[in-house]
Amino acid sequence: MRNRVIIENVHPEINSGQFFIKRIPGEKVFITADIFGDGHDHIRAALLYRHESQKRWTEIFMDEHPNDVWAASFQVEKKGVYHYKIEGWIDHLLHWHDGFKKKYEAGQGMKVELQIGAKYLRDTARLYPKAKADILIQFAEKLEDENAYEQAIETALSPRFSQAVYDFPMKQFQTVYDKNLQVRVGWEKELFSTWYEIFPRSTAEEPGQHGTFKDVERLLPRIQAMGFDVLYFPPIHPIGKLNRKGKNNTVDAGPNEPGSPWAIGSSEGGHKAIHPELGTMEDYKALIKKAKTYGIDIAFDLAFQCAPDHPYIKEHPDWFLWRPDGTIAYAENPPKKYQDIVPLNFESEDWKNLWEELKSVILYWCEAGVRIFRVDNPHTKPFRFWEWAIAEVQKEYPDTIFLSEAFTRPKVMAELAKVGFNQSYTYFTWRNTKKEMEEYLTELTQTELREYFRPNFWPNTPDILAYELMNAGPNAFAKRFLLAATLSSNYGMYAPSYEFMENTPHTNGKEEYLNSEKYEIRHYDWNHRNRLTEMITKVNQVRKENPALQTTWNIHFTRTDNDHLMSYVKYNDDKSNIVWCIASFDVEYKQSGFIEVPKALLGIERNVNLKVTDLLTGEVFHWFNEWNYVELNPDKYPAHVLLVEKPQR
Amino acid sequence: MRNRVIIENVHPEINSGQFFIKRIPGEKVFITADIFGDGHDHIRAALLYRHESQKRWTEIFMDEHPNDVWAASFQVEKKGVYHYKIEGWIDHLLHWHDGFKKKYEAGQGMKVELQIGAKYLRDTARLYPKAKADILIQFAEKLEDENAYEQAIETALSPRFSQAVYDFPMKQFQTVYDKNLQVRVGWEKELFSTWYEIFPRSTAEEPGQHGTFKDVERLLPRIQAMGFDVLYFPPIHPIGKLNRKGKNNTVDAGPNEPGSPWAIGSSEGGHKAIHPELGTMEDYKALIKKAKTYGIDIAFDLAFQCAPDHPYIKEHPDWFLWRPDGTIAYAENPPKKYQDIVPLNFESEDWKNLWEELKSVILYWCEAGVRIFRVDNPHTKPFRFWEWAIAEVQKEYPDTIFLSEAFTRPKVMAELAKVGFNQSYTYFTWRNTKKEMEEYLTELTQTELREYFRPNFWPNTPDILAYELMNAGPNAFAKRFLLAATLSSNYGMYAPSYEFMENTPHTNGKEEYLNSEKYEIRHYDWNHRNRLTEMITKVNQVRKENPALQTTWNIHFTRTDNDHLMSYVKYNDDKSNIVWCIASFDVEYKQSGFIEVPKALLGIERNVNLKVTDLLTGEVFHWFNEWNYVELNPDKYPAHVLLVEKPQR
Repeated sequence: MRNRVIIENVHPEINSGQFFIKRIPGEKVFITADIFGDGHDHIRAALLYRHESQKRWTEIFMDEHPNDVWAASFQVEKKGVYHYKIEGWIDHLLHWHDGFKKKYEAGQGMKVELQIGAKYLRDTARLYPKAKADILIQFAEKLEDENAYEQAIETALSPRFSQAVYDFPMKQFQTVYDKNLQVRVGWEKELFSTWYEIFPRSTAEEPGQHGTFKDVERLLPRIQAMGFDVLYFPPIHPIGKLNRKGKNNTVDAGPNEPGSPWAIGSSEGGHKAIHPELGTMEDYKALIKKAKTYGIDIAFDLAFQCAPDHPYIKEHPDWFLWRPDGTIAYAENPPKKYQDIVPLNFESEDWKNLWEELKSVILYWCEAGVRIFRVDNPHTKPFRFWEWAIAEVQKEYPDTIFLSEAFTRPKVMAELAKVGFNQSYTYFTWRNTKKEMEEYLTELTQTELREYFRPNFWPNTPDILAYELMNAGPNAFAKRFLLAATLSSNYGMYAPSYEFMENTPHTNGKEEYLNSEKYEIRHYDWNHRNRLTEMITKVNQVRKENPALQTTWNIHFTRTDNDHLMSYVKYNDDKSNIVWCIASFDVEYKQSGFIEVPKALLGIERNVNLKVTDLLTGEVFHWFNEWNYVELNPDKYPAHVLLVEKPQR
Repeated sequence: MRNRVIIENVHPEINSGQFFIKRIPGEKVFITADIFGDGHDHIRAALLYRHESQKRWTEIFMDEHPNDVWAASFQVEKKGVYHYKIEGWIDHLLHWHDGFKKKYEAGQGMKVELQIGAKYLRDTARLYPKAKADILIQFAEKLEDENAYEQAIETALSPRFSQAVYDFPMKQFQTVYDKNLQVRVGWEKELFSTWYEIFPRSTAEEPGQHGTFKDVERLLPRIQAMGFDVLYFPPIHPIGKLNRKGKNNTVDAGPNEPGSPWAIGSSEGGHKAIHPELGTMEDYKALIKKAKTYGIDIAFDLAFQCAPDHPYIKEHPDWFLWRPDGTIAYAENPPKKYQDIVPLNFESEDWKNLWEELKSVILYWCEAGVRIFRVDNPHTKPFRFWEWAIAEVQKEYPDTIFLSEAFTRPKVMAELAKVGFNQSYTYFTWRNTKKEMEEYLTELTQTELREYFRPNFWPNTPDILAYELMNAGPNAFAKRFLLAATLSSNYGMYAPSYEFMENTPHTNGKEEYLNSEKYEIRHYDWNHRNRLTEMITKVNQVRKENPALQTTWNIHFTRTDNDHLMSYVKYNDDKSNIVWCIASFDVEYKQSGFIEVPKALLGIERNVNLKVTDLLTGEVFHWFNEWNYVELNPDKYPAHVLLVEKPQR
């Protein structure tokens, strides 16, 4: 009870330490806290952190800021879990030293003061191992030397002495703020990934044929050349035959209709089986291996729901809800029923076995080589289940990614990220104006979300033909792509549909595709290239070459005088790589305006002629003024993506 | 692990439940939380609370608001501690019932639905005692009656059925949010008190005499007549003789100088003794009793520091810091030394006995009849000590008030309130413009501070002659008084100095009085009355008669078109008492302008002619328009204090 320092309002701290924050190796963690003591004694504070593999804490002294805020940061290097805590204490040695200087300046007699200082030095020395203690004791001896008063004072006023007081704080009765705060440091790909989504069944060379994993292998060079490093398939399991959905989501599928891959399970197997027409487990493993040689990870769709003929229903009837008439309870949104889908009942008495089985499904595919899971509708399964399952899997396979496919309410999406999802789908798809986009990026990067919610921007998905892309021309596709790829370090597209600019909506008026690939097999001319193909290839190359585009947390918006033009600068910590994007939101007309040149932000002097190179066109500009004129023609490029060369001194 | 509802971001919750919030009987507690579940099932949530004397929780259903926010409130009635917690659950009965209605409207067959509902009703009935369960079972039987399909549907769609579904939720697998959240309900005077500060030694009838407690008794009728209900004295203990301070804080007091009452302790005794010239313990107790008959509580100054001749120093040398030359460490702010004051060393090895002794001091005065403690410089003693000491004392004497005299940094002041102080001095003294005042009141009443920090507004203290009052005329004194008394339900004044408008600053340029009463005995003409005497008397009467002015939390600012005019409305919960103040910040010139008439806020229709009565002047106005013209002459009144009569229908 002799500790006198208060530590509170610590950030980051998610739900009082219930959840970890997220980083990849090389990222920093910035910690702030309100720290103060009673009275006027000087206080000190330290941030302590350690990797789970280490016993010893590393200590960093915190800096004081106005209004009793203290701050420090540390860089994480190793994957795994880091712990951090804060200590604060009254530092009598420091307090005495500061008073000593003031009294000396006021011309007071310092004899007793020197003795007090010597005592504090000796008390402090007891806290340290010999080498450090010796330094303090030597200082104490000098202060105590009654035959050398002037030298004693000189010693106490020397920079070396001040440094010792700083380096070896007199830490006693310290307050320890330890809420088991954790940082999970994961796979680099959690922060920087480029996703390409295809239906493997649509990859056959011959029209009318069912595509296979082997067909996909043929596409790998193209996908690699375009710069993608994650290849994601909808579920690859046997598709239910009972109540199978037909073309355009009709309820009575014809005998040859393939059904939706999300209606999982039939007599051919369930969540550990592969749809026979796609190939065998060996084919799948071979594809994963082959893709790896192209630098591509195959992402798996984890959709924990069942078709009515899924084997689970007979094997584990108690994992489902049954109606009084003996029929199974389908998914529903009254008055609508989804009779091709049966949800799992997580309130089952047998929930433990259900959890274990679902975990075993994930581990089964990890063993097959899968490391990236796109999780379908995670918000319709309990948060506690995901918290447990992801932690369990990542104990065995730390380099795995779980992407949360939840397009729902903000707090639900945030909670999924808190419980462990490594990436999350976002509202990017529906942010259409400059103002909306700036606000959304600010929310994602400047609030607590930044600590645990990693956005993955998708302009479309098989479920979503965004209003802005309905019946839209190439310029709209170019714009939405470029925004996704430069605003967020993680982005993806439902690929052939996007690249080949499918834009016809379903007649139901919703944001859905007509003739959605979810319910039918398509045939694409994979040799076709268009303006978007070239742009995607170029932009992905720019992303690979510029570290500034490999994180989402470094965005700085700068001012423009035209609401159609959005300007954002991204740079890495040492500003060795600076990318400055100026995007136009107008897909019809040229837009021009003046853009603030962020010299102050970049630490560049005002009278410098700034060289910027457009990484898309190769054009070079030299900008001198504080505001610079820019013109964007949507028929050419939706944005400048400028490499800023910071002048060397 | 089958609970599926998340509860987080609960307000109020101070430091994760470490500290209680504060109320007096009759006040409400408003609780909000983010509450949501996975999936689309309907959820419910309840707030549960109980007084510490009760075992059973009272349950109130929470209401859902946008963005997954849920809210509820409860009123505290009894003094002591209330506990509150939140429960949330998926309500299958409610979910089924909502779906039932939608399916019925869509014309679907309802036979199986009725059976499902009956089953949920029977499951729910098991959660309730017989009387309630019977209601549900009767409904179940009706739904199950296969011979009365139409009646069954009618039953399920009836308002009575909906009410039962609401009243008897199907609560299972509930998530319980219980962080031991507490409300301390204290003495009514914690929220509504009117303080009068005098130096009893300045109350003698004869000039040059030392005033006594008996002299103070003579003043009680005057103090009561002016409307004060707390009479606060600086420390009443023997004053140190060693290093005693002289007139105007000089270091060499003459032999007859009385010294500062805050330099506590001499050979005549310490913190449990009374300065002999003031009277005896019997006199003090008699005064407390007498004052009570006037409705006045005597407030005690708790200043835990010692004069150099305090008995503690010899009796408990280990409670103090000693210098290597054998001298005691005085209070200091280098290079300044305060040689009439020795601080206690709370880091003493003997800290337990020190704590116990200080607690015994407080209890000693409680036993003498004291119930209100104004604590001197609490921020120079450890927070943990106060947390313990106040809790210990209030266990034995729940109806006590501790006022924190800390004029320091915001977070330090807030922390003192968190650890238990019932009232706090504030920055009111230095808020001089309308903008500053509105911002400060908004911070005090609309942020988390509202839950634990109770302001007590003082325009002056013996330590502070605010810049705005230096050499100022009566209008300035009238204004600052009126703001304090109408903005805050707790206010006080260092009284004769304020009432008689002392305005001469010390020559040191600080906000200090010349010839401060801290260092000398004054003589006042207590029969003198002036404009301020009348105004104080009137305003305190208005405060007593109008419940709207007896709380600080009900302030609503309304707009004016003149930055010198501030308009604020206060009303009680049922709006049976509405007081509307319009204050001018200009003490020199008349100010006029249009003021928004807050009809919408008050729930008054637009076409009503509003009758308002100025409680200071008795003038009556009828205001019809949305904005109304007002003129204030600082030579008369600094404000309108209007009673708004809400028209009866």
